[in-house]
Amino acid sequence: MSDLSDLNRAIAAIVPVTESVGAETQGLLDRKTKPRRSLGRLETLACRYAAARGDAQPVMPRKAIVVMAADHGVAAEGVSAYPQEVTAQMVLNFTSGGAAINVLCRQVNAELVVVDMGVATKVDAKLLVRDARIAAGTANMTQGPAMTIEQTLAAIEQGILMAHRLADRGVTVIGLGEMGIGNTTAASALVSVLTGKSPREVTGRGTGIDDAGLAHKIDVIDRAIAKNKPSPGAPLEALAAVGGFEIAGLVGVVLGAAGRKIPIMIDGFITVAAALVAARLAPAVHGYLIASHRSVEPGHVHATAALGVEPLFDLQMRLGEGTGAALAMQMLDASIAILREMATFEDAHVADSGA
Amino acid sequence: MSDLSDLNRAIAAIVPVTESVGAETQGLLDRKTKPRRSLGRLETLACRYAAARGDAQPVMPRKAIVVMAADHGVAAEGVSAYPQEVTAQMVLNFTSGGAAINVLCRQVNAELVVVDMGVATKVDAKLLVRDARIAAGTANMTQGPAMTIEQTLAAIEQGILMAHRLADRGVTVIGLGEMGIGNTTAASALVSVLTGKSPREVTGRGTGIDDAGLAHKIDVIDRAIAKNKPSPGAPLEALAAVGGFEIAGLVGVVLGAAGRKIPIMIDGFITVAAALVAARLAPAVHGYLIASHRSVEPGHVHATAALGVEPLFDLQMRLGEGTGAALAMQMLDASIAILREMATFEDAHVADSGA
Repeated sequence: MSDLSDLNRAIAAIVPVTESVGAETQGLLDRKTKPRRSLGRLETLACRYAAARGDAQPVMPRKAIVVMAADHGVAAEGVSAYPQEVTAQMVLNFTSGGAAINVLCRQVNAELVVVDMGVATKVDAKLLVRDARIAAGTANMTQGPAMTIEQTLAAIEQGILMAHRLADRGVTVIGLGEMGIGNTTAASALVSVLTGKSPREVTGRGTGIDDAGLAHKIDVIDRAIAKNKPSPGAPLEALAAVGGFEIAGLVGVVLGAAGRKIPIMIDGFITVAAALVAARLAPAVHGYLIASHRSVEPGHVHATAALGVEPLFDLQMRLGEGTGAALAMQMLDASIAILREMATFEDAHVADSGA
Repeated sequence: MSDLSDLNRAIAAIVPVTESVGAETQGLLDRKTKPRRSLGRLETLACRYAAARGDAQPVMPRKAIVVMAADHGVAAEGVSAYPQEVTAQMVLNFTSGGAAINVLCRQVNAELVVVDMGVATKVDAKLLVRDARIAAGTANMTQGPAMTIEQTLAAIEQGILMAHRLADRGVTVIGLGEMGIGNTTAASALVSVLTGKSPREVTGRGTGIDDAGLAHKIDVIDRAIAKNKPSPGAPLEALAAVGGFEIAGLVGVVLGAAGRKIPIMIDGFITVAAALVAARLAPAVHGYLIASHRSVEPGHVHATAALGVEPLFDLQMRLGEGTGAALAMQMLDASIAILREMATFEDAHVADSGA
């Protein structure tokens, strides 16, 4: 049985990234045949990766995307454009390779790990789905907490174990992905509680609800917060009250990865909510977090601001699944290849102005 | 000898992209297992590529980056942080595979073509450099036109031929790259003339000059414009007056590629200046132009606005060489893989809300 001591052990294992290693990497990049810093954020990306890994000249990244799936009791309130069955249908789609994240993982040569954290209908045992089910969906957060504290701790523990398993297999960067009908409602509630912004400021259209649906979604979140009274000073309890199994699992992935010096590529709104919970539980995760893209969901900007991270790009995406994280891994590969393969001014006999 | 009739023939060969094909591609994407349009600009990128190719379900792109290099007489005015010799040194660096664009072309599996359009010191004959030299650098544009009209037409013709050669070899997307000490000065002058913005508004620090250097650079551009009196209504003459051999060559690449239905990936400030000249000569090139990144150079935003294109990302880069175009090709590959490989709602038995 998971308990608080497991969580506290994982948190204690996280040491801040080594900023001096990042500075050393920047020094190496400054000798390459280009005006200093002229590759902009591609250079800072390499430095951040190096600082997290504690290695100024890291080998090419070995990449994995962890997609955690679960259902949400709050879906009964009609907060999504899709029926709850779609969560299980999409998990099956992941197993047969037809979803966007499958395509993008193949493109970027990242391993895809799909985890059932608590889909309402148990997914048929398939090779590609790891069973870490906590329950068949969370409770409806408008009626009481979505999860018990025990369920929340168990879900976090599953995430920590998953990160450790990937670390043991040599993975050096983990992207966060998720699937769960109703989960932008949970993420909006969490981000509202943890940032102090109102539900109206952080809530968006998710998979595509209309104006009336959006007003209803905000009302549902208002009611869930009024019922549970989560507090920003108690992130674990807030996660239990208005989070979800996949969100708690991703909190665990962040904590477990950071504890093994593995940088984490945040994706869209649900994953940034999970990263925010993790950072409130363990501030030292900060340096391991890389924001891939800016989601269309309005709460994304508030969550990244609260985390102190700036997304690499904005392609007006709102799919989730880890799709933005996968695209950012292409940029990460490019940045590390630049560090490893470019000639220095001395190598290439090019005059260096120092500019 | 090149003459105006060659240019006019190339312009006449360009037909506007087929917008209905792009709409057909969007229809295909709307049946994929994701909320409609939820991959945002990744979807519009696939549609734009399809419209340019005239094929709603194109095969995976075959990619090339053309880096054109030349020297600029205006370098004698001390407008760059680097000495003129660096142009030739960097061309050699391209041939030995050590520059940023070499690394990024390998990452994205793009062919790299390096063209000497008129480097001051002739580069030793090497396998990877194509000789299309017009002269050993342009004239100093503060004293008179940088190029004669005949030189300008010859450089454009070389670019057209290069695009046709790549088209004949099956290349389906061409990225623009360049190298030339002093060429942000030429590009600033050109963009100022063609957009009506003042030199002060469009001129930046290039490879990294200081405040005094920037003020001097703006003064040099003011003098070149006062001397040559280029007009926005005469883009060919403006190109001759304040352009350069590599810029004219890239104008030709754009025209030649568009004439063969090959989309063009614009890179930084010099390449967007070339694209702007091409669009003024042949408005039908518009639909073939894709802006990769937003350059740090202040004139980039004015040039893309004048072209009616919006960069895909902004990584605060200012290197040139085609580095932003190469990174955008990763996104293009991802977008076409999504189109080709994702399951439809019907394939995957996933409920479609129509959202």
